[in-house]
Amino acid sequence: MNRLFFKKHTKVGARPGTLVIHKDAEKPRIRIIRFTPDEHFDNQVETIEQIRDELSKDGVVWIDVQGMGDEALIRAIGDHFSIHMLALADVVNVPQRPKTESYDLHQLYISRMVSVDEDHQLEVEQISIFFGRNFVLTFQERFGDVLDPVRKRIRSKKGPMRKSGPDYLAYAIIDTIIDGYYPVLEQYGEYLEQLEARLVADATPKMLAQINRIKRNLLILRRGIWPQRDAINILIRDESPFIEDDTKVFFRDCHDHCIQVADVLETFRETAGALLSTYLSAIGNKQNEVMRMLTIMASIFIPLTFMAGIYGMNFEQMPELKRWWAYPALLSTMFLTAGGMLWYFKRLGWIWTRHDDD
Amino acid sequence: MNRLFFKKHTKVGARPGTLVIHKDAEKPRIRIIRFTPDEHFDNQVETIEQIRDELSKDGVVWIDVQGMGDEALIRAIGDHFSIHMLALADVVNVPQRPKTESYDLHQLYISRMVSVDEDHQLEVEQISIFFGRNFVLTFQERFGDVLDPVRKRIRSKKGPMRKSGPDYLAYAIIDTIIDGYYPVLEQYGEYLEQLEARLVADATPKMLAQINRIKRNLLILRRGIWPQRDAINILIRDESPFIEDDTKVFFRDCHDHCIQVADVLETFRETAGALLSTYLSAIGNKQNEVMRMLTIMASIFIPLTFMAGIYGMNFEQMPELKRWWAYPALLSTMFLTAGGMLWYFKRLGWIWTRHDDD
Amino acid sequence: MNRLFFKKHTKVGARPGTLVIHKDAEKPRIRIIRFTPDEHFDNQVETIEQIRDELSKDGVVWIDVQGMGDEALIRAIGDHFSIHMLALADVVNVPQRPKTESYDLHQLYISRMVSVDEDHQLEVEQISIFFGRNFVLTFQERFGDVLDPVRKRIRSKKGPMRKSGPDYLAYAIIDTIIDGYYPVLEQYGEYLEQLEARLVADATPKMLAQINRIKRNLLILRRGIWPQRDAINILIRDESPFIEDDTKVFFRDCHDHCIQVADVLETFRETAGALLSTYLSAIGNKQNEVMRMLTIMASIFIPLTFMAGIYGMNFEQMPELKRWWAYPALLSTMFLTAGGMLWYFKRLGWIWTRHDDD
Amino acid sequence: MNRLFFKKHTKVGARPGTLVIHKDAEKPRIRIIRFTPDEHFDNQVETIEQIRDELSKDGVVWIDVQGMGDEALIRAIGDHFSIHMLALADVVNVPQRPKTESYDLHQLYISRMVSVDEDHQLEVEQISIFFGRNFVLTFQERFGDVLDPVRKRIRSKKGPMRKSGPDYLAYAIIDTIIDGYYPVLEQYGEYLEQLEARLVADATPKMLAQINRIKRNLLILRRGIWPQRDAINILIRDESPFIEDDTKVFFRDCHDHCIQVADVLETFRETAGALLSTYLSAIGNKQNEVMRMLTIMASIFIPLTFMAGIYGMNFEQMPELKRWWAYPALLSTMFLTAGGMLWYFKRLGWIWTRHDDD
Amino acid sequence: MNRLFFKKHTKVGARPGTLVIHKDAEKPRIRIIRFTPDEHFDNQVETIEQIRDELSKDGVVWIDVQGMGDEALIRAIGDHFSIHMLALADVVNVPQRPKTESYDLHQLYISRMVSVDEDHQLEVEQISIFFGRNFVLTFQERFGDVLDPVRKRIRSKKGPMRKSGPDYLAYAIIDTIIDGYYPVLEQYGEYLEQLEARLVADATPKMLAQINRIKRNLLILRRGIWPQRDAINILIRDESPFIEDDTKVFFRDCHDHCIQVADVLETFRETAGALLSTYLSAIGNKQNEVMRMLTIMASIFIPLTFMAGIYGMNFEQMPELKRWWAYPALLSTMFLTAGGMLWYFKRLGWIWTRHDDD
Repeated sequence: MNRLFFKKHTKVGARPGTLVIHKDAEKPRIRIIRFTPDEHFDNQVETIEQIRDELSKDGVVWIDVQGMGDEALIRAIGDHFSIHMLALADVVNVPQRPKTESYDLHQLYISRMVSVDEDHQLEVEQISIFFGRNFVLTFQERFGDVLDPVRKRIRSKKGPMRKSGPDYLAYAIIDTIIDGYYPVLEQYGEYLEQLEARLVADATPKMLAQINRIKRNLLILRRGIWPQRDAINILIRDESPFIEDDTKVFFRDCHDHCIQVADVLETFRETAGALLSTYLSAIGNKQNEVMRMLTIMASIFIPLTFMAGIYGMNFEQMPELKRWWAYPALLSTMFLTAGGMLWYFKRLGWIWTRHDDD
Repeated sequence: MNRLFFKKHTKVGARPGTLVIHKDAEKPRIRIIRFTPDEHFDNQVETIEQIRDELSKDGVVWIDVQGMGDEALIRAIGDHFSIHMLALADVVNVPQRPKTESYDLHQLYISRMVSVDEDHQLEVEQISIFFGRNFVLTFQERFGDVLDPVRKRIRSKKGPMRKSGPDYLAYAIIDTIIDGYYPVLEQYGEYLEQLEARLVADATPKMLAQINRIKRNLLILRRGIWPQRDAINILIRDESPFIEDDTKVFFRDCHDHCIQVADVLETFRETAGALLSTYLSAIGNKQNEVMRMLTIMASIFIPLTFMAGIYGMNFEQMPELKRWWAYPALLSTMFLTAGGMLWYFKRLGWIWTRHDDD
Repeated sequence: MNRLFFKKHTKVGARPGTLVIHKDAEKPRIRIIRFTPDEHFDNQVETIEQIRDELSKDGVVWIDVQGMGDEALIRAIGDHFSIHMLALADVVNVPQRPKTESYDLHQLYISRMVSVDEDHQLEVEQISIFFGRNFVLTFQERFGDVLDPVRKRIRSKKGPMRKSGPDYLAYAIIDTIIDGYYPVLEQYGEYLEQLEARLVADATPKMLAQINRIKRNLLILRRGIWPQRDAINILIRDESPFIEDDTKVFFRDCHDHCIQVADVLETFRETAGALLSTYLSAIGNKQNEVMRMLTIMASIFIPLTFMAGIYGMNFEQMPELKRWWAYPALLSTMFLTAGGMLWYFKRLGWIWTRHDDD
Repeated sequence: MNRLFFKKHTKVGARPGTLVIHKDAEKPRIRIIRFTPDEHFDNQVETIEQIRDELSKDGVVWIDVQGMGDEALIRAIGDHFSIHMLALADVVNVPQRPKTESYDLHQLYISRMVSVDEDHQLEVEQISIFFGRNFVLTFQERFGDVLDPVRKRIRSKKGPMRKSGPDYLAYAIIDTIIDGYYPVLEQYGEYLEQLEARLVADATPKMLAQINRIKRNLLILRRGIWPQRDAINILIRDESPFIEDDTKVFFRDCHDHCIQVADVLETFRETAGALLSTYLSAIGNKQNEVMRMLTIMASIFIPLTFMAGIYGMNFEQMPELKRWWAYPALLSTMFLTAGGMLWYFKRLGWIWTRHDDD
Repeated sequence: MNRLFFKKHTKVGARPGTLVIHKDAEKPRIRIIRFTPDEHFDNQVETIEQIRDELSKDGVVWIDVQGMGDEALIRAIGDHFSIHMLALADVVNVPQRPKTESYDLHQLYISRMVSVDEDHQLEVEQISIFFGRNFVLTFQERFGDVLDPVRKRIRSKKGPMRKSGPDYLAYAIIDTIIDGYYPVLEQYGEYLEQLEARLVADATPKMLAQINRIKRNLLILRRGIWPQRDAINILIRDESPFIEDDTKVFFRDCHDHCIQVADVLETFRETAGALLSTYLSAIGNKQNEVMRMLTIMASIFIPLTFMAGIYGMNFEQMPELKRWWAYPALLSTMFLTAGGMLWYFKRLGWIWTRHDDD
């Protein structure tokens, strides 16, 4: 739990703008894609000079930095793009709450990307996106191919991408990230259905832990999507000089997706809550079954034992003891008593009742 | 559950405007109704040219497309009406959240229609409505006769329909969709009453599953009606060039219906919550009954068995054993003891008590 | 439950303005009261002409229509007062949500009246009030004397009624309706107290049903009063030509009453929620009592029975069996054991403990 | 409960402004304090003339009316100060929701005073405060010394009181009332702590009733303080001619106190909720203890009784019965079995385990 | 609990501005730091004159007062800085709700500092910060080194501190306080994880008390951070003459931290709620285990005891008693019966089932 919230945080009272590079952080790789309506270039670069070079050329330039493990390089990039020291700290000291902030030379959008591993464990990664007059600059925590569909669309020449500016490219990146919530939702939806199916049969503490974990994960997902909804709303409403009016309709679509994701999350949270009440009632039902078994056994055999006890007494004057028919008669009485109890329990619906067919 | 939220969604990172045609989607059928105050025509058409033809004539034209199974045709219709590619994607990539959006040449209203099958399973379908200067264009997911009452009203010449523009026709369609929530509510209301009646007798896990399912369905209904309330409010408030002032009072009526539906849903959700607590307490009550049975049986027979045990001992010096009255005396004591216990349990209200008459 | 929400509703897709007259609806009776500061008249009328007649005279005219069972007459009245067809439908197709709407020639206020029968069952009735330049027109679902206090105040000449216009009369009617919530609240308050007192002794499923029913009724009351609060607020805020400034202070008082009713309802809902938790804990306590009884009986007698069992064995070498003091010694041991158990249970507070005095 | 909400209310449909004097209402006592920066006078008066007399003199006049039992006198005071009939009704027909209202000649502030008796029962009293150009007029339900600290501050000449106008005096009164919530909170805080300490040992239905009662009282307290927060906010924001700008900073302080009281109330409500869950779990724990006792007793003695039963059988061929070592051997086996069970229960942590030290 | 809310409060009806010095309050120590871009001075002072002296010199002056135990000195400082008597009361009469207030000569920001001792007990302290043209004046309840990181940054000459005004220094102090919430969150996060791990094994009332205590502490933390979020927002939005535009971006960062802290708190509260349901279900599971043990023991041995009882009867005509094979046959039957029961319980999953592996 802590891991998702406190991966790293600066020392209390540290100077604002302090960058906290985690010792396991990967060395940054920088990939530059530059495109005009007619051509496009895709390079791996290593130095600030190469970036500067690309920026001086025609077209939209997308600088994608993957990995945070080199403070000097990141500071150099920050200086080159005149990134405010607090903005740069937000990029490095993940996780930040998703938000958008407007600066003189660029717009910053901090997004949160989610994925699920095979054990239903949620993975969260921050992507920070700066976009200005002719560039988009993205920072990712780790190497990853999540933005490959965007690169493919740049290559393909179809659609408005190649003819549009950096705002459209930024939209495409954000849209891809938010689309990435759908498969996660799908997996959790299936997981919830599995849990629901297994629940009655298997109301164990471990099950409860799984329900609680899924609730927590749904909460984390909500914390990822809600602020993005607000941030995109700000992009649409505010008059940012970096966003064309034509692009706003695309952001509006993106905004709709955020709301839809939030709606589904809400439904899942309700479902998880229903699982909890199912779990608690399953415990109660199990107890009922155990009690019923005990009651049936005890109610049948305790009276019979009592009858046997009567004729185990040593009184001298117990005339029944001497009749030849007494023993078979008692046995029959016992059988009848047991049968009567069974019939009674059957009528109460405690035994030989099928509940779960349908 | 998933089915209602994820029938189909575009691939992560797909180009905006990508249409996802489900492989089972029905081939579209297009029906055109054109009417003036004096006459009306009703045709099945197949090509764009026929649509164009009708639109060039006098009167209000309603183009109703049922089924999504032909991407080319739908794109052609979209092009002809200059529908924005994102709007067209919203039409095809169902389900979208109900909303209204204003474009230069038409207003888009995305609605959600509900119905219930005999197994209380909720069916949800999206209807997308474009209306402009002289036309209404609707897209439905499947074939269906849900809008037949509107067609009938067009034919009948009574009421303001024939004298009004496309805004009134759009209102009539939306109103019919929202009216369609009432029978669904009615069915769920009856279902809730049935569940309530069966609950105490039949507090089984299956019952709980039904309560949870109904809660989920009520939630889905709310997700269908709340955004429509907002969307209709936007139609009333905003100065859309496609809505006459006279028509707004009708939309206001429609808005009232949305609120009423939402109110009833809220009450039903409370009722479903009450069912849950009834269910949990029914489990507790059952357990009490089982325990009581056990306690009564044990409390009566264990002391008696003990008494019998006493006189089953083999001490040589047990003078009682030799008295002729000893056995009958013990039997009487046993009867009295048992009777006393029964009287005590009766006084505690554990047996022979009628609770449920009134 | 359904009855309160769906008494009647129009067919899906019916033309707006369709009136649904229930087959059991009572034939309307029309009563006209006309008053000037100096005189007042009170007549039963039957035709539109008589109404027109009265309206052409001096003073404020109050036309009170009780019963909805004559569509022609109601349409005629609607036509005469130029009532919008949707407004007329709202009057007839009860229940509508309370609201106010402003038209050119009159203001419409839809109110909801409540009462409780002796079985704590809530009765809800809609009163629709139109008021214009010189008239107030009210529609009630059924015959009733709930507005008699207003008529009495008209007759009595005291207070501002006779000197004021139709807006004050409308206020007096609305105020009387809202005042009618107080006795209902009082009854439910007493009912809640009764339930609370009976609860611990009588935690039966029927009790739970009563708690749930009262919660539902409180919810229905809230649905009756909250929208009226908003509607009255609109009357106060909006510049309606039909409301004098002097009358607004009276509506403000009425608004305060709405809030007060809503506050009390809120408290009652909390109380009902507390009853639920009391109910559930009472079930738990009952179970504890049952279990305790069982445990005490079993803990005392099972060891004794075991002791008796020991000396019921048929070993040849059991020297104790032959001692004359053995039987009395065993009986004493048994007494001491039982006494020790009782002392122990007493110390645990399971028996002979008074909890409920204070 | 009713008592707090329905002490008295007007008949349904009564004329607005009707005063409902409760038959037990105390006869009003009127105390007039008049002060200028230099002098101050403190008199008991009986007639309107005396009040008029004081008002005609220099300085700020505070007329404090305690007790409502004289309609004629209260109406006379109302007339003299030109109090609107609805405002006067709000003063007399307690309890009203706290609020402030602005009239031409004075500002009305309706406040709610709270206190707790030794049985933790909440007492609520309404104080109505009118303040105008040179006077403050207060109405209290009963005699009481709660405003004595204010009188003392008037006498003492220290602080801004003597140099300020009626607005500051009104502030001082309101501030004293709101300060009066703190000791109440303190008492409930201590009561909650007591309840918490007693809870585990004493989870009786009476305890639950106390928790529910405290929750209800906290709710009543919140209903007393929240509307005052709003009312004071209105005093600060609105441009009342009766409040100097210099006094507003004092009202702002008063507003802060309201929020603080509300915060503490919120925390107490959470605590009371926690008590409820503690209570329910205590019931569950008690049940566990009872069950454990039963299970231990039964598990130990039932097998032993069975063993004894074996050798109580009358088969002719039971060679063990004849061995001299059989009886001691069986007794040893029984001891070992019992010991084994005890060891097993000890290992399960059911017996001889200390949980509550720390 | 009380301690945190009512450490001290003024007498009801006390004059506004009354200072309540707690008898254990520490004597104030005053430390003055004055710095210009080039130099910095750090002194312990004792008198107002020394403060005046420092203020007359160049640069930014930070007067840090630790301890409240000298009313005369604090009033003297208040007079010297023209602090409003209510503001001074807010400083001394802790705890106040965090807030910011704007005065003519300075801005007041009341903050709340948190820390956790080794027993997970929350410590809360109020820091009041005044900042004006050339000074920052802070009041702390107790001595403490929590602001040492700020002093170190003043000394270090790096960063914007030395070149900025008192607004930046105030920011640095507030930021340090809010950063101080992170380690507290981290500790509670770990504590929650520990509780979760121990919960199933150890569902004791003490555990519940710990869960409730952590919930209460999380609530106190929220009460500490939420109002600060609002207060910082006011600093950003309002046009305070004491805050430079360049500094606002830093306050915006601080605002983000507040939201992040609040988010984590929310998640923790959910987690604590999940612990509660885990706790309750653990009690239920324990009960199930106890019941199961009882049921298994009783179901196996009660029938066997009955069988033994049968052949303990003294009928003369029981032919089985005389057969040599009868005893071994009965013993075998008993073994088979017991084995059958065990097999049945095994099939029910009541025994020999591993649940918790994964």
